[in-house]
Amino acid sequence: MSDIGSLDALVQALRRLPGVGVKSAQRIAFHLLQHDRAGARELSQALAMAAQQVQHCQRCHTFTESAVCATCLDERRDVSRLCVVETPADQAAMERTGAFSGLYFVLMGRLSPLDGVGPRDIGVQQLLERAGDGVVQEVILATSFTAEGEATAHALAEALKRRGVQVTRLARGVPVGSELEYVDLGTIAHALADRR
Amino acid sequence: MSDIGSLDALVQALRRLPGVGVKSAQRIAFHLLQHDRAGARELSQALAMAAQQVQHCQRCHTFTESAVCATCLDERRDVSRLCVVETPADQAAMERTGAFSGLYFVLMGRLSPLDGVGPRDIGVQQLLERAGDGVVQEVILATSFTAEGEATAHALAEALKRRGVQVTRLARGVPVGSELEYVDLGTIAHALADRR
Repeated sequence: MSDIGSLDALVQALRRLPGVGVKSAQRIAFHLLQHDRAGARELSQALAMAAQQVQHCQRCHTFTESAVCATCLDERRDVSRLCVVETPADQAAMERTGAFSGLYFVLMGRLSPLDGVGPRDIGVQQLLERAGDGVVQEVILATSFTAEGEATAHALAEALKRRGVQVTRLARGVPVGSELEYVDLGTIAHALADRR
Repeated sequence: MSDIGSLDALVQALRRLPGVGVKSAQRIAFHLLQHDRAGARELSQALAMAAQQVQHCQRCHTFTESAVCATCLDERRDVSRLCVVETPADQAAMERTGAFSGLYFVLMGRLSPLDGVGPRDIGVQQLLERAGDGVVQEVILATSFTAEGEATAHALAEALKRRGVQVTRLARGVPVGSELEYVDLGTIAHALADRR
């Protein structure tokens, strides 16, 4: 497809997406141009619009179209509890539980020295200022239970405790609906240690 | 992420891509907005540009930005041989071999009644007219060796032979570099039957 500049440019642009290699990019480009030009135009407009309009909430750093997001502006929420999550998707999962009525701080990533993601990239300084404002009583660390998520939670807990903020972490344990036989050993060991 | 219209619109538009579900769409949107806004703008422009400029070659149906593609316009090519492929990517693979100097007819798909793809969608009528123009001496069927590709090749071969056109098919056999032990039985059986 080498004599068609706009098609080559499209394949190159698609390759910048995470998880899309050259074969996938060619397949997507073929699909859009052969079967779904309306979809191509819709995606083009959605990308331009989102790149222009989406910004970060000044208070919690999540994606929003205004200076402060709707959740942070909601006066019915419990301002004394602050839940720290990695991404807006994690925040959405937390919201869907209906079990948390406090506010959020969205790191927009996690500490990952190998990828060059340090404390500044996830807004640690802003989190410490927010948590130390005298209104927040408890910071709930809800980062992922992966190696990087755990390391992030550990670093944040240390820094927050030094400032005298009460810090908690989501409980580790057996997932709801699991048969013990199929749960990994690390999870069972944690659930046993944290029994109540 | 429900209070952000432009982000939701982006996730919805990304879901129209083949092989992208709601989780992948959210991950791609997060990546673009958090780490690669330049990539988002580049993709937006590439999509709009390609959707506007890419059309089908009047002679071979492949993607091109002009009325007739560069391959069809190339006077050094052997006009007596016509190779039928499914997609521009297949055509590109054929070209990279350097073993074929004829012209192409790109079906832009393959017969697939279950997906509603019939003879009209892959331009069978145009292929028959092209092959019967008195210049083409041989039609080489290079559709995929899948069930649908084989069915397409069979249908095309029948129609072309009825018009007295010489039809050949790419050889089936053991791939270069294979150890026989690891080649599937159907392939070995075909290679044995077509031995030379």
